[in-house]
Amino acid sequence: MAEAVEPKFPRPLRAGEAPRGHAVRFDEELPLECGRSLAPFTIAYQTYGELNVARSNTVLVCHALSGDQFAAGIHPVTGRPGWWRTMVGSGKPIDTDRYFVICPNVIGGCMGSTGPVDIDPRTGKPFALDFPVATIRDMVRAQAMLLDALGIERLLCVTGGSMGGMQALQWTADYPDRILSAIPIATSAWHTAQNIALHEIGRQAIMADSNWHGGRYIEGGFAPNKGLSIARMIGHISYLSEEALARKFGRGLQGRVAYSFGFSPDFQVESYLHRQGSTFVERFDANSYLYITRAMDYFDLAAEFGGELERAFAETAAQFLVLSFTSDWLFPTSENRLIAGALTAAGRDVTFREIESHRGHDAFLLEEPELLSIVRDFLDKLAAQAGIA
Amino acid sequence: MAEAVEPKFPRPLRAGEAPRGHAVRFDEELPLECGRSLAPFTIAYQTYGELNVARSNTVLVCHALSGDQFAAGIHPVTGRPGWWRTMVGSGKPIDTDRYFVICPNVIGGCMGSTGPVDIDPRTGKPFALDFPVATIRDMVRAQAMLLDALGIERLLCVTGGSMGGMQALQWTADYPDRILSAIPIATSAWHTAQNIALHEIGRQAIMADSNWHGGRYIEGGFAPNKGLSIARMIGHISYLSEEALARKFGRGLQGRVAYSFGFSPDFQVESYLHRQGSTFVERFDANSYLYITRAMDYFDLAAEFGGELERAFAETAAQFLVLSFTSDWLFPTSENRLIAGALTAAGRDVTFREIESHRGHDAFLLEEPELLSIVRDFLDKLAAQAGIA
Repeated sequence: MAEAVEPKFPRPLRAGEAPRGHAVRFDEELPLECGRSLAPFTIAYQTYGELNVARSNTVLVCHALSGDQFAAGIHPVTGRPGWWRTMVGSGKPIDTDRYFVICPNVIGGCMGSTGPVDIDPRTGKPFALDFPVATIRDMVRAQAMLLDALGIERLLCVTGGSMGGMQALQWTADYPDRILSAIPIATSAWHTAQNIALHEIGRQAIMADSNWHGGRYIEGGFAPNKGLSIARMIGHISYLSEEALARKFGRGLQGRVAYSFGFSPDFQVESYLHRQGSTFVERFDANSYLYITRAMDYFDLAAEFGGELERAFAETAAQFLVLSFTSDWLFPTSENRLIAGALTAAGRDVTFREIESHRGHDAFLLEEPELLSIVRDFLDKLAAQAGIA
Repeated sequence: MAEAVEPKFPRPLRAGEAPRGHAVRFDEELPLECGRSLAPFTIAYQTYGELNVARSNTVLVCHALSGDQFAAGIHPVTGRPGWWRTMVGSGKPIDTDRYFVICPNVIGGCMGSTGPVDIDPRTGKPFALDFPVATIRDMVRAQAMLLDALGIERLLCVTGGSMGGMQALQWTADYPDRILSAIPIATSAWHTAQNIALHEIGRQAIMADSNWHGGRYIEGGFAPNKGLSIARMIGHISYLSEEALARKFGRGLQGRVAYSFGFSPDFQVESYLHRQGSTFVERFDANSYLYITRAMDYFDLAAEFGGELERAFAETAAQFLVLSFTSDWLFPTSENRLIAGALTAAGRDVTFREIESHRGHDAFLLEEPELLSIVRDFLDKLAAQAGIA
């Protein structure tokens, strides 16, 4: 049984008028790859635009590690515009005047979908580290159940960048008949050693925080904000490029004309990082960060198919648009090209484009004209084929 | 007055037979760029090979952030071979059968040169954060005083990678007449925004450790080992390349055949990182890490000369060999090419070579045949010019 409920956020809302969005509570089990299952569980999601009568215009947007369901509109906790405001909205490439956009919060997240901040029904206390490790495949399975509950059988498109791209790929492998197209952006078919390492350092920073308390910080009224902030800073640096940082900050000093010869932030880039850390802890949960990074680390779509990535794409007839950015060193072009190669080997209809940008991995979130026009054109053509006005 | 003393190490020695190396204690003042000065102060150093009668065969080797004076031989604390064992030794490119190698521990370090672990004569307690922030220029000034005390007027060569390369460049600017040649490797004329950011995250990890106690951990018998370990992990990842990590570890699991679905290290790359962190804290001091990273952040050789880097090289007649590595994203070829370009603009004799390697920044420490043969040939030619047998 699935039932619409009010989404619960572990962080206070900023503005009374901000939309809470939607949530569906499932009483049935969500079986997980780890062998355990979740029941009941909730998926919080946001929608933009209207479902057409033919139910043929749904675009599923999958968020990245630090994202959530608020891709567009105003975020109810931060009061800031959604994370994919360049891409999703009225007149934007994923045009909410034409398409019905669904963006769910992942299982393990902290914006209303069931995660480690929620109460474990077996104990009456927050799950914390008793929450099962959910994989990208588990996240996608929960999304499919959400679409079932909403009566949406087929997707015009599934898309996302980074971890969102992993989900898009997993969708085409696990639900090949439900997908007309997929746009994985700046992603990988398996998480690389370098990226596992960066995640592990972030996790160690969280778990080293004396306020983490073995993960049971909520019950004690603590928050491992220093550790989470460091994890965010590590992540944030990996999302940028040397050139982007050099252009934006260079060696500029922050509010001073000479070095302090001390350890307060002297440089603009230091102040910037501190802000990134301190604003992140206001909207994100430290244990969720552990769980979602682990899901990415475990992602290996080829391994799910006996080491042959092309077999992952054997069943779907979806059209693919695979995109990467020249200065992205976290999910570099080479990783995305591997995906495109496997799609070609599987006989799929695939377009691969490397987009020139100096902004690193973050480019997928930004005003990148080439990215926006490629996605717009791809969806336009697809909508014409599908007879969407 | 300068006096030979026994170097003091803040960490226990592993083996009784390991050489402690040398140290000189200065009673005169070391003036610092921050406006303060140090007196007395000590420089610990190691030597390899013999000074010739003409005093013309000295090679000054400058260490990087996490290095020390034990470039060759056996490290007395770790029991492992020195950090530049591929480069320095009998029959190696910096051949200790021909050259007299001096490698000093930097001011601010923790292997015997005066640093934050030492006793502040004003208080009788460890300096901790009362230690003045020393710059690369200050480190080099102390090295020049050491050479004066040892009666060595001119250097055949000054060399080092990373922060060692910064010192080599500073030497040519500040002591242009004392240098016959310089080999800066995988370095930069100013620390970039990205690198400042990575350092700042490491410092934040140290200062967030509840055992750091505002820097006064020694007096309390504590050590911020978790924070220092995280700082080291961040550094270590930045020293490698995606390809090096992929080749070395890929997605290999450590001592298991399936995921644990938990937060212990599942992947080889995670275990490797943990080892890097835990061995580092056995030989390094957390406050030294703060000070030395800050020295690198403050390094801007162009700024010292009114923003015109070529002016830094206007006075020296030294020959330069500038080297970079293709996969080094921390001190990329572009940064090293800038140095070579400024040298050319200044009319200097400079050879620039980008060496093909997949091993990232760490390549300068490793068995890289092209690196070793280029340095060997450069020194051979120089020695012939200088009449060294």
